Amino acid sequence: MRPRSAPPRRVTIVDVAQHAEVSTTAVSKVLRNAYGTSPAMRAKVRKAVAELGYRPSAAARGMRGQTYTIGVMLPDIRNPFFAEILDGVTEWLSDTEYQILLGPGCNGEAAEARVTETMIDHSMDGVILIAPVSSRSRLQHVASTVPTVVVGRHSHSTTYDSVADDDIAGAALVVDHLADLGHRRIAHIEHLETDPARIAEMPNAIRAEGYRQAMRAHGLADDIDIVSTTYTQQGGYLGAQQLLARPRRPTAIFAGADIVAMGVLEAIAQAGLTVPDDISVAGYDNTTFANFEPISLTSVDQAGREIGRSAARLLLERIAELDKPAAHIRLSPTLVTRRSTAAPPR
Amino acid sequence: MRPRSAPPRRVTIVDVAQHAEVSTTAVSKVLRNAYGTSPAMRAKVRKAVAELGYRPSAAARGMRGQTYTIGVMLPDIRNPFFAEILDGVTEWLSDTEYQILLGPGCNGEAAEARVTETMIDHSMDGVILIAPVSSRSRLQHVASTVPTVVVGRHSHSTTYDSVADDDIAGAALVVDHLADLGHRRIAHIEHLETDPARIAEMPNAIRAEGYRQAMRAHGLADDIDIVSTTYTQQGGYLGAQQLLARPRRPTAIFAGADIVAMGVLEAIAQAGLTVPDDISVAGYDNTTFANFEPISLTSVDQAGREIGRSAARLLLERIAELDKPAAHIRLSPTLVTRRSTAAPPR
Repeated sequence: MRPRSAPPRRVTIVDVAQHAEVSTTAVSKVLRNAYGTSPAMRAKVRKAVAELGYRPSAAARGMRGQTYTIGVMLPDIRNPFFAEILDGVTEWLSDTEYQILLGPGCNGEAAEARVTETMIDHSMDGVILIAPVSSRSRLQHVASTVPTVVVGRHSHSTTYDSVADDDIAGAALVVDHLADLGHRRIAHIEHLETDPARIAEMPNAIRAEGYRQAMRAHGLADDIDIVSTTYTQQGGYLGAQQLLARPRRPTAIFAGADIVAMGVLEAIAQAGLTVPDDISVAGYDNTTFANFEPISLTSVDQAGREIGRSAARLLLERIAELDKPAAHIRLSPTLVTRRSTAAPPR
Repeated sequence: MRPRSAPPRRVTIVDVAQHAEVSTTAVSKVLRNAYGTSPAMRAKVRKAVAELGYRPSAAARGMRGQTYTIGVMLPDIRNPFFAEILDGVTEWLSDTEYQILLGPGCNGEAAEARVTETMIDHSMDGVILIAPVSSRSRLQHVASTVPTVVVGRHSHSTTYDSVADDDIAGAALVVDHLADLGHRRIAHIEHLETDPARIAEMPNAIRAEGYRQAMRAHGLADDIDIVSTTYTQQGGYLGAQQLLARPRRPTAIFAGADIVAMGVLEAIAQAGLTVPDDISVAGYDNTTFANFEPISLTSVDQAGREIGRSAARLLLERIAELDKPAAHIRLSPTLVTRRSTAAPPR
């Protein structure tokens, strides 16, 4: 047996104090964000903490009732939009003692329940749930147990805070842009939402509704054409295959997410068509993929990094003050036009 | 204050038993993987567990000394190769009670120390460290505290298991392919490794060495041309800019990772050159990005999913038997040729 009962000595507050050449009291004050520390002192202590990889011991943190960990649940690490959100969360927390642990690969209510129960079991100080599909009552349950911020759902909950973008406005930006270019047959690929209780909250459903409203506003009600798949590359691929097989195929496809647009571009290339000469494509999320030069995808920027920063800020405020009123932030999206959209073929 | 002291009742083993219409003893047996359960019984219980989102309570698990969580540290969630590895880990663990928690965004030894300390604090049952940059002594420290598998480092440690691909062979596959197509001026973009103690273990350094060996084997020693940046999209972009500015620019670029190739393709497009007519590009990792039709990148397949499965298998074996001899798996890579490589321009 290896000597598991006597692990190597861990870095202590004394080591940090010696390394930073300050007193242990000073280290303790900095770590608690207490008053009476100078910026220079804080800088010295944080540098020593970073260099030694120090974390307050579980026991010491337990005494204060905190684990200094934040759980972030995200549905799909392949979707580059979630990396943007995570960057914002990480950035906001980088000056704090909080460490993020991710619960990945959720693809349904059961998986989400398992991830959130794990985070609660581990006594995490708070959780950020990105684009959860769980029922509202399940989210309320989580939020009544641990400080919770929900990202990417339009909520009016009084138990948890939320951050989302204005998906009605975002969808309208795309339709306006394509209609201005002269398109009429503008199709949309949505993520199928079957639960009636969730439809009013889910960004995918709201984006589809925004598309419908904008098409009507442009007098294009008869050209509304929605294919329901999923917000995945495969979903975009299958959705585009359906649209390309239409007797009068659309001249533009509005994919509900950049990762969906990836699959759309793939189906278009396989069909021997070119973008934007034969067909225009727009996405949603303005990920690094959209900005990738050989792709150059027109996309709605919902400021993922800012969403992440806001979520982290709300969560720290909630941890500090459990009974503060729930805040619901809606960020206004913008459109970034690139080479994938142009006037329709004559 | 919200009633944090009295959280809603959690799902118990009794709920699972009622839902599955079996005895609580039967549920307990299935959860412990004990003998004397039929396949039908296991299926019923697992279905109920999934539907209710049940996890053994922290207390019950604590009594058995397990938390049923596995920590996975990964350096960059933007690199699609790590998603492949994670898929393999998730797949292998999907039939078990283990839940994965990810420690993301490590970019140096201090960040890695913080993540691994957090995982140890949380009493995780085991950790998988993907492409860590920490010193060998730091990895030994972690492994002496918690069962550990290291992925993507060539190790002979006696304290932890490891899984990596044969990077010398992988680099040779690329050079052989390009040389066979008629290329001589084949350049390589590597991830700079400055620590002499780590060079023998790091896949990036070994890939560069494999490139050198293969170039010499083809009589191309004078054409060896390595640019040192990082394994990121930005690193590929900056590396390719340097190479394209050479008086006699290379006819082929071997990027050390697919994510590096992304940046290479970007720089080439900005320079007004086309792939493969003006210049061939090959990557490493065979990610979904390489397989993406509009990109179609020739790439080395190091079987990320299989790497993940192997890592999870080794970890569960190590958790079950702490003093088993350390195992070091080397998987043989293969080359997937696509449209991004062709004969050099005349």
